[in-house]
Amino acid sequence: MKKKGVLIVISGFSGVGKGTVVKKLVEKYDYRLSVSATTRAPRPGEIDGKDYHFKTVEEFENLIDYNGFIEWAQYVENYYGTPRKFVEEELEQGHNVILEIEVQGAMHIKEQYPDAVLIFITAPNALTLKERLEGRGTEDIKVIRKRLKRAYEETDDMSHYDYLVVNDDLDACVDEVHAVIQAENFKTSKNKDYITNIKEELAQIRKEI
Amino acid sequence: MKKKGVLIVISGFSGVGKGTVVKKLVEKYDYRLSVSATTRAPRPGEIDGKDYHFKTVEEFENLIDYNGFIEWAQYVENYYGTPRKFVEEELEQGHNVILEIEVQGAMHIKEQYPDAVLIFITAPNALTLKERLEGRGTEDIKVIRKRLKRAYEETDDMSHYDYLVVNDDLDACVDEVHAVIQAENFKTSKNKDYITNIKEELAQIRKEI
Repeated sequence: MKKKGVLIVISGFSGVGKGTVVKKLVEKYDYRLSVSATTRAPRPGEIDGKDYHFKTVEEFENLIDYNGFIEWAQYVENYYGTPRKFVEEELEQGHNVILEIEVQGAMHIKEQYPDAVLIFITAPNALTLKERLEGRGTEDIKVIRKRLKRAYEETDDMSHYDYLVVNDDLDACVDEVHAVIQAENFKTSKNKDYITNIKEELAQIRKEI
Repeated sequence: MKKKGVLIVISGFSGVGKGTVVKKLVEKYDYRLSVSATTRAPRPGEIDGKDYHFKTVEEFENLIDYNGFIEWAQYVENYYGTPRKFVEEELEQGHNVILEIEVQGAMHIKEQYPDAVLIFITAPNALTLKERLEGRGTEDIKVIRKRLKRAYEETDDMSHYDYLVVNDDLDACVDEVHAVIQAENFKTSKNKDYITNIKEELAQIRKEI
């Protein structure tokens, strides 16, 4: 059943731990993680090509002109984009590719790749989400308020995702996201060639015995 | 996320090992297996209530009249049916219920329960299927021909199933079927209450901080 890979889009509320889920998924299973390009300056410790592909504004805008991104956006002063070449080549080779992107980017992906699987990682409930945001200890109350406001707004987009997975226990969440992606590969709609082939093979075998 | 269970219909070619897959699934994970009712005589070793619910023709026909089956059929001289009460009660309690039934029965289930998940277990290819049928060693060539003819006919119905899972390695197949069913529970369409709730909770929390 050789076929194209699955394009997987992972989003989730701020504080829900989606970065950790994605990291574990890639460590544990055979997924290809898309690395975004950006024009923002690298932070201490960030590695070019691993955390981001760091680009100048000129380079980035040139790539936009040449259709080099499957989606891109501008936040504050910086550009962020998903490189087209990596994603399309990996899918063509039958690999499953993960994008960790924002809700708006996810909606753009779904328009261009209707077969993409959109997964929203969420918390067991709102109180847990608030506690996780507070527990980071690095954010003041204003930042927490802003993130909760954004989470509230994002609930309107949750219904556009194919799957919701609760991150309560990290390992369970990772396995559940993996199960969701596996299931995608077994959909009959993705295995029409298999049906055609086995029907022909059965016709042939019936002639021979 | 308390919700109704998933109704799972498992079918597959004769010789593909679907009975063993179902048995392992029930042993390994928390599924409820529906036991069919039949009017055929018990075979040596078969236990009433475990292998089948054995009924007289009068009892069975009375149950048909009282809508006691979610699907039933007559093969040769015998009736076979899926008891309604067990299935509906278990689903209501949030349990995932497995039915191992024929293709025609599966189509009847899908009409009545559009949310049912239909899984077709298949072999890697037609040659493997033929070898497994021969490998049983108990069937003569006429029986094998008949089963291959039926498999050929069943390929027309495969596209009505939601998922195709290949039984190449038994343990892998069991885990794959489990993944497919798990994924069903995470569909956004099955978690609308969760979205409504977390939106309300977030609105409340934002008022409080």
